[in-house]
Amino acid sequence: MATVMIGLPAVLPAPPSSVLLAELNELEPIQAGRAALPPLGSGSPAPPSLAAAAAATTTAAAAATTHSLSVTSSAHTGQCSSRLPRHGTELTMAAVQQNTLDFQLSVTADGNTIIKDLQPIFQEQEMTETVHAWEDHGYLATYTGKNGSFATVRIYPRGLVLIDVQCSDEPQEKASAHQILNKIEEKMQEILHNSIRQVKRLPALVRGAPVDRYWPTADGRLVEYDIDEVVYSKESPYQNIKIMHSKQFGNILILNGDVNLAESDLAYTHAIMGSGKEDYYGKEVLILGGGDGGILYELVKLNPKMVTMVEIDQMVIDGCREYMRKTCGDVLDNLKGDCYQVLVEDCVPVLKMYAKEGRTFDYVINDLTAVPISTSPEEDSTWEFLHLILDLSMKVLKDDGKYFTQGNCVNLTEALTLYEEQLNMLSCPVQFSKEVVCVPSYMELWVFYTIWKKRSGS
Amino acid sequence: MATVMIGLPAVLPAPPSSVLLAELNELEPIQAGRAALPPLGSGSPAPPSLAAAAAATTTAAAAATTHSLSVTSSAHTGQCSSRLPRHGTELTMAAVQQNTLDFQLSVTADGNTIIKDLQPIFQEQEMTETVHAWEDHGYLATYTGKNGSFATVRIYPRGLVLIDVQCSDEPQEKASAHQILNKIEEKMQEILHNSIRQVKRLPALVRGAPVDRYWPTADGRLVEYDIDEVVYSKESPYQNIKIMHSKQFGNILILNGDVNLAESDLAYTHAIMGSGKEDYYGKEVLILGGGDGGILYELVKLNPKMVTMVEIDQMVIDGCREYMRKTCGDVLDNLKGDCYQVLVEDCVPVLKMYAKEGRTFDYVINDLTAVPISTSPEEDSTWEFLHLILDLSMKVLKDDGKYFTQGNCVNLTEALTLYEEQLNMLSCPVQFSKEVVCVPSYMELWVFYTIWKKRSGS
Repeated sequence: MATVMIGLPAVLPAPPSSVLLAELNELEPIQAGRAALPPLGSGSPAPPSLAAAAAATTTAAAAATTHSLSVTSSAHTGQCSSRLPRHGTELTMAAVQQNTLDFQLSVTADGNTIIKDLQPIFQEQEMTETVHAWEDHGYLATYTGKNGSFATVRIYPRGLVLIDVQCSDEPQEKASAHQILNKIEEKMQEILHNSIRQVKRLPALVRGAPVDRYWPTADGRLVEYDIDEVVYSKESPYQNIKIMHSKQFGNILILNGDVNLAESDLAYTHAIMGSGKEDYYGKEVLILGGGDGGILYELVKLNPKMVTMVEIDQMVIDGCREYMRKTCGDVLDNLKGDCYQVLVEDCVPVLKMYAKEGRTFDYVINDLTAVPISTSPEEDSTWEFLHLILDLSMKVLKDDGKYFTQGNCVNLTEALTLYEEQLNMLSCPVQFSKEVVCVPSYMELWVFYTIWKKRSGS
Repeated sequence: MATVMIGLPAVLPAPPSSVLLAELNELEPIQAGRAALPPLGSGSPAPPSLAAAAAATTTAAAAATTHSLSVTSSAHTGQCSSRLPRHGTELTMAAVQQNTLDFQLSVTADGNTIIKDLQPIFQEQEMTETVHAWEDHGYLATYTGKNGSFATVRIYPRGLVLIDVQCSDEPQEKASAHQILNKIEEKMQEILHNSIRQVKRLPALVRGAPVDRYWPTADGRLVEYDIDEVVYSKESPYQNIKIMHSKQFGNILILNGDVNLAESDLAYTHAIMGSGKEDYYGKEVLILGGGDGGILYELVKLNPKMVTMVEIDQMVIDGCREYMRKTCGDVLDNLKGDCYQVLVEDCVPVLKMYAKEGRTFDYVINDLTAVPISTSPEEDSTWEFLHLILDLSMKVLKDDGKYFTQGNCVNLTEALTLYEEQLNMLSCPVQFSKEVVCVPSYMELWVFYTIWKKRSGS
């Protein structure tokens, strides 16, 4: 029966001291994959997502790791030959900006008057007006500009005035859009002054851009990244692979639309390796997945006896070897080293083989995508597959060994509960503990699990 | 001349071990204030924002702090008597949902055909159509529903099809909106299959809600929080004060629209206290600002000789004393304690008085809003004010003392450079170091500064 270890309080204490910077502009913030377990009841897996959430705060302990300050990573130099070729259409395809401006009134909204008062602002831009009036639902005024821009003014009688201005994402049109919105704000203050409870003007949504900045969190929130470049973009036999550059987080590995690991996210790797509590010297470690090389790179520094990493997707390895070097260093340059080997295979048959051979490990680190890529026929659903991975892992885990994995974002409590129920249903009884980690590039807190075999008599 | 200390590499190492959890549902993720220095050249300050960015990752070191696991904070119980009274209109004012669905095509878009093909989907919902056609800019089809919902289909000839569906944020309308979007996706795949390069469907934007979930980052990105309640909302003589509850970050202090500090953000406090490298035993400390009580609470545990905190806004103290107890504990329950005193005053006159008296401190911790609330007439601009604070602080800092402050988000390189130039222009020469910290609730990396007097001969 799985038991939760009750330990330290829930308030996350501060991390140890931060890293000093030489040059702010050379800051390569932290590093890998947000991956949410599928919602309850989903038979077919959601698109697989790598489970790599590394909390990236600076620590004195980790400051001992020798990451280079160099900014020669190809993502940052103009002379990079491995940059994604830009198609002609991508260069000329301007994106679109959607600006929103919302007013909450403390009175009912007189739509007719508001539209009449705002009209001149649009007329000044030579925009053509169309108005739709509902009997009980207010007004919708639509304005189209000669240059292809358009605006909508939606007035709800209960006191909401919502304005949208859509224009091309280029300087002149953006300036016009901002001018329109500024004038609307002024006018609304003028005509409604004391009745305006709240004005909200959000950063514009950029739509249709070749470089996508929006990667929602596992718990379904809209978040925008400071992404300025697509560094690597491939469709492998297993998944869609993107590596995109973020100003503050460095290169980010995104698998099937899920943020997996950024170069800044060393704290993920640290957490999934047991948060500094383990002694890996002379140990035998099995990594499931881990194609970004982050765990392998950190492990190899700790003089293990042998690390075996089983990653199914060569193209993830290729992309990370080249573009995530702050995460993997040079460890992916060769699939074999003094104390490690990388098998580019599906881990399930490998696990079965090891179980059959009676091979065991001190540590099994599950860095698979949360909805793993299964090539095994017997797993009908993600949860069955996860159960299989857990069972097989326990078979190859030494009796006093530890199993580490990432779980889910802290808000997806149902999925986390379901996962813990799975832990209760394994062939061998286990205990587990969990911890919450902050992964800089994730924008949501993430839960990591440590699982071990319940010892007889305990 | 200010010198940057070159030290540890730019990659943020992993934090030490994380905090164990007893119950996921009781998890109170990390804690206070993003505040950006104003952009270059701004004479009048942008709305003040508290500078509280705490990196919140779990650490073994900080695990020694005794924060309670209790979830009796009033923000979380139904019986909370101090919850914000709900006005009738707020309860009945349903918010609005804006759904977006974007297609990037690899061919030019035949707007006429696309509109005709999508028409039945809207007709099925008994929506009324209006179409505007440009000569060279494509089409805009607008659909209005009987229940007040509406949709726009904007087709750009270069191969962008952008769809918006706006509806009330209530279950039935949301379901209809999703149905429309699902059918559009199906239809588009059907008619354009191989020509669709990308489909993007973001989480809906919620507009006009009484509980605002959107608090853009200092570097201007749109981010949505898991905020579900307004806990405290006041307009003080100095600023707009809100405390809002986030599922994962706990209560969040937001001043003048800037996220300042969340209950989960202990790492901010840790960073601004010198990241665990300082010995506060028997020391004299001056805190400028710090009304959330976070720094004071942590300091008091370390047996300082005397901590003096000078906060201008009583209502910030009041709100945090009640609703940010994971941050301030009980330290704000009394303005005086064995080893501390809280002065509710403008810190500038206090600093001048201390300077005149020749009073000095081992540490000066600047936790003012980045665009501080100045009641002094001589500061025309924010940068002049910051300069004044720095000069006065150096006057009251012992020769071997340290000054800590938060700077800005890591991406605002110009503002950071400007700040460092200020450091070069102080009455006494100083040196400084900086570090990058991850503050969970900030969703952006933050820079902290340590400043000290340049010693003669060094």
